[in-house]
Amino acid sequence: MATHRVTFLPQDVAVEVPTGALIVEAAREAGLSVHQPCGGQGRCGRCAVILKEGQARRRSTVRLSADDLQAGLALACQTVVEGDLVITVPEQAEIQRRLVTEHTARKIEVPFPYDPSVHQTLRTLQVLLLEPTIQDSVDDLTRLRRGLAARGYPQVEVPLSALRRLGDSLRRAEWTPWVALDVPEETGSPARLTLLSDEPIRPVGLAVDIGTTTVTAYLVDLESGEVVASTAEYNGQIAFGEDVISRIIYAAKNHGLDELAGRVRQTLTTLLDRLQKRSGISPDSILKVTVAGNTTMIHLFLGLPPGPIRVAPYIPTANEIPIYTAGELDLPLNPSATVDCLHGVASYVGADITAGVLSSGLADTEALTLFIDVGTNGEMVLGTRDWMVTCACSAGPAFEGAGVVDGMRATEGAIEEVWVSSETLEPTYRVIGDVAPSGICGSGLISLLAELFVTGVLDRGGNFKLDLGTPRVRLGDHGPEYVVAWGSQAADGQDIALTKVDVDNLLRAKAAIYAGFTILASSVGVNLADVQQLLIGGSFGKYINVEKAVQIGLLPDLPWDRFHFLGNTSVLGSYMALLSRESRRRIAEISRGMTYIELSADNSFYDAFTAALFLPHTEIARFPSVAEIWEREGKAQPSAQASEA
Amino acid sequence: MATHRVTFLPQDVAVEVPTGALIVEAAREAGLSVHQPCGGQGRCGRCAVILKEGQARRRSTVRLSADDLQAGLALACQTVVEGDLVITVPEQAEIQRRLVTEHTARKIEVPFPYDPSVHQTLRTLQVLLLEPTIQDSVDDLTRLRRGLAARGYPQVEVPLSALRRLGDSLRRAEWTPWVALDVPEETGSPARLTLLSDEPIRPVGLAVDIGTTTVTAYLVDLESGEVVASTAEYNGQIAFGEDVISRIIYAAKNHGLDELAGRVRQTLTTLLDRLQKRSGISPDSILKVTVAGNTTMIHLFLGLPPGPIRVAPYIPTANEIPIYTAGELDLPLNPSATVDCLHGVASYVGADITAGVLSSGLADTEALTLFIDVGTNGEMVLGTRDWMVTCACSAGPAFEGAGVVDGMRATEGAIEEVWVSSETLEPTYRVIGDVAPSGICGSGLISLLAELFVTGVLDRGGNFKLDLGTPRVRLGDHGPEYVVAWGSQAADGQDIALTKVDVDNLLRAKAAIYAGFTILASSVGVNLADVQQLLIGGSFGKYINVEKAVQIGLLPDLPWDRFHFLGNTSVLGSYMALLSRESRRRIAEISRGMTYIELSADNSFYDAFTAALFLPHTEIARFPSVAEIWEREGKAQPSAQASEA
Repeated sequence: MATHRVTFLPQDVAVEVPTGALIVEAAREAGLSVHQPCGGQGRCGRCAVILKEGQARRRSTVRLSADDLQAGLALACQTVVEGDLVITVPEQAEIQRRLVTEHTARKIEVPFPYDPSVHQTLRTLQVLLLEPTIQDSVDDLTRLRRGLAARGYPQVEVPLSALRRLGDSLRRAEWTPWVALDVPEETGSPARLTLLSDEPIRPVGLAVDIGTTTVTAYLVDLESGEVVASTAEYNGQIAFGEDVISRIIYAAKNHGLDELAGRVRQTLTTLLDRLQKRSGISPDSILKVTVAGNTTMIHLFLGLPPGPIRVAPYIPTANEIPIYTAGELDLPLNPSATVDCLHGVASYVGADITAGVLSSGLADTEALTLFIDVGTNGEMVLGTRDWMVTCACSAGPAFEGAGVVDGMRATEGAIEEVWVSSETLEPTYRVIGDVAPSGICGSGLISLLAELFVTGVLDRGGNFKLDLGTPRVRLGDHGPEYVVAWGSQAADGQDIALTKVDVDNLLRAKAAIYAGFTILASSVGVNLADVQQLLIGGSFGKYINVEKAVQIGLLPDLPWDRFHFLGNTSVLGSYMALLSRESRRRIAEISRGMTYIELSADNSFYDAFTAALFLPHTEIARFPSVAEIWEREGKAQPSAQASEA
Repeated sequence: MATHRVTFLPQDVAVEVPTGALIVEAAREAGLSVHQPCGGQGRCGRCAVILKEGQARRRSTVRLSADDLQAGLALACQTVVEGDLVITVPEQAEIQRRLVTEHTARKIEVPFPYDPSVHQTLRTLQVLLLEPTIQDSVDDLTRLRRGLAARGYPQVEVPLSALRRLGDSLRRAEWTPWVALDVPEETGSPARLTLLSDEPIRPVGLAVDIGTTTVTAYLVDLESGEVVASTAEYNGQIAFGEDVISRIIYAAKNHGLDELAGRVRQTLTTLLDRLQKRSGISPDSILKVTVAGNTTMIHLFLGLPPGPIRVAPYIPTANEIPIYTAGELDLPLNPSATVDCLHGVASYVGADITAGVLSSGLADTEALTLFIDVGTNGEMVLGTRDWMVTCACSAGPAFEGAGVVDGMRATEGAIEEVWVSSETLEPTYRVIGDVAPSGICGSGLISLLAELFVTGVLDRGGNFKLDLGTPRVRLGDHGPEYVVAWGSQAADGQDIALTKVDVDNLLRAKAAIYAGFTILASSVGVNLADVQQLLIGGSFGKYINVEKAVQIGLLPDLPWDRFHFLGNTSVLGSYMALLSRESRRRIAEISRGMTYIELSADNSFYDAFTAALFLPHTEIARFPSVAEIWEREGKAQPSAQASEA
């Protein structure tokens, strides 16, 4: 097959690839990383490169304008090499760390009175062995086994990684090594050797939450139960897809799965390095790891192909992952450490939710509770400690700023809160980092949407009123829009606006989530208004303004004291499972006991969704507080039927 | 630290290394492989390179003559880089495949009436699963577990490698997959999933023997028990040491262990490729692997540091290796296959011997039996089915042609048998491959030594008689010697001779082995003459001439019908263990039941060794057949005391 030379600038790296290779493949070959937030589907336009010389065929140009094409732009994920090429790779916006939750500032409480001898399956002990002689020359492993048997552990599994270190460890320990054993509850099942050391072992564990956007890790002292250090970092997979669906698509590409698995491993490496710097504790001494995360993240972490998660009937490889070792998973920590991925429920209700149900307290309460975790997906659980129903809505990444013209992630330069004057319709806004604004993030979008609605700029169908006498509302390239920031105030000199298309995207996202609440409630015959507490997990919840979220109909209209923002409930559940076998068992129980409703198979979902496509909802009676504002403000209440979205 | 540029010719590869690096390290950096048969100790002289330009310090020149130094020769393993260098690497003699036992020619018999349902712990079955739907949406693993539970396997361990393939396999199999399970005897212990397929599974296994010199593999149909294909290849580790001690030394060097483990894996890859070509069976369908080999070979195969094997009290990491998977060991076959390393006894009596004790029949006999396996080491077992004693002699590699001036491995060009006329003292010889001779291999050395002794060229102390009137016996560079082939007949134009130094090396090697026999016999109070059968395993045994081996005192003087040459008893034992759990259990029993005698701790060993340093032995009464020849030939019987070796 003919090959061609592809040269990348400014790096000036060249590779040979066969005819028909994609530019992203050539870039990977060249050791360059090109961000593909949509997973390589040609939808996001963020992998655009400039063809400087040579022959290539663009399979898709959907995201490129005539000017872009004129300038030589091509989507790296959609452009096929047909001759020698010289390509310029534009500098890629680095993801800035702002939303990343750095917990070190505040102390994380031990979640219950902790007693390692009760809660742990881990045992650490010093084993006294006789030094071998010519007369007593049994091998190291037999000698250790004898010592352990004498201490009450007649059957111990020794992973290959531990066996490889055994000889050296015993000798350095002068035949009195310290060992850590993981002793599962089931009688008869053997203990596992998880560490062998020549020093007393300080038992530490790692609780991880692998979020689609952020990976969080707690390094935990298993003696005291305390978090010694914690840290978080954007999931390195973001470059290959912002949401789980994009990543599943990317994983199906050549080497895609390996690449994604490698990325999250790399992110964990970064976290472990940071934890070591902060605590002085080496990752080599970690004895066990618990991992929470949505089902796709867990699959990618383990290298399990996630393809079937995406297509009906949406079946993952496993919700109950066996325990493997860090060595098998090639993690940069003590290779004999056990890695326990918590149990999930279904393809779209994963271990992040079961962990959250435990840590949020839903699993302990008699009160009717709605637990939601809104991130790139919206998962929700309704119930009490005795019963639970759950579903997931593909809200899409609109609230993460994707699919919105001036949307952006909640990093420096993002407008995060907006107030619109009902008199002048002029906005006031707050920008993350107090700099000139670059775009609008999720909380800003919710805030803006609510303000525009309450001030009458938008009607209940999400249509702009164009006759309000303000230059802020105008007809732009994408149809009607409201300008939040003029170019003169903005970071890049361009107006920042919310367009009609954006509004429609946001309405669909919020409608999907609210429809989920409706379906859950009706499936068990309760009324949303009867929900006694609404527990909100996920970092998204930490930044949104409940009042505004209720005003647009994203959250049900309940008294404010019923809302509780809990932050990252997933990592907290992971931490509890790390601390206690009882917590771990309860998560397994929760995952088995929950009733999962697949919305795509639920006939009433579409009706509920359509009814929620209005501001705040077709049935205004569901939102008494919004009705009250209207009355107070004296605004007209346009009928839901007046204008279809 | 200062670095220097080292350029290797003729490859013309250059690398930068710091001051003080060894030339072998620079070569490895440059991706070149320099053979180090002695493991990098500077003893063998085979890694000599030519310094063409630049500054280097020779730490040892023991193996180099003044002429060699003049010509710029330096030992790559002993020469330190101190400035920029240009080095010529001489072409390295390729190991020719001649002694490698290619078994395809002869049929290997199934060793006992075989019934897989009785002998195997493997079970293959087809599992009927219901295709998932939105209503029945449990994950793949749970679905499989339900199907297996319904077939009587409620608890099945699923290795990570199998989990990674699970989704795809179930779908390709349209939810009626075939599975292979390994079901250990112990009740309560879970079964292991070893293969999942969309086609009926033909159960195959692999029996391996990892010899220091040769690796042998049988691909076995586990339904019929028959060997489908077999093959053997030199162990790729030879380049880093001819004997186990050299390899242990090499393993202690930087990256040495990884390199050695990689080499044997590479050799296995070669064997598996060949087996696949011959049988059409993919390594991906191998369900289990049994591995025999000496303790050092097993350690290097598993990546266990072998260092302590070499120093008193000679303790290996493990004689009873847990079962791991091919995936954990990074072997190029079905990653879920179990890899079972057979049990060894001690650092120098490994699984090759326990396997041999089973396959040779020693474990079944009431007759007093001596089993020996002479390779680069000499291991031996004396006993009956009811008791066994064992020891190992470090004979050194003299019988493999190493440590002998004109010695060579048994490949093309090696003199393998010699006859010396008692009238003219002129030799006749046979050369492997019927070509001009290049040197003398092990069987040739034994043969020559015996002939020189019987014809009176050597006295009982191994001293040359210089007054015999033949130009064949002369004083050479290394002292007295006998010329077997004049340069005019030899491949490289140089005389091929056996020197006094060579004779001394050979005497020490044979004395070590014979002393082992003596110690074993006296430890249990039996007489060597009472041995009813002498079973000889290992490829070495296949080529030696018993008569000659007895004449030099390497083997005890017994009636010929008591000698049985069995070939590779280790791979045969590995094959039996693969076929039958009963055989596997018996090997474990044999390893635990044997009494190991550590010769270095045995005070009588040195006396026995010294007594055996003569031809054939100080006590001629032990060798009545040799005494008879002398009488017949009318040769003088020089007294043992006359000349010390």
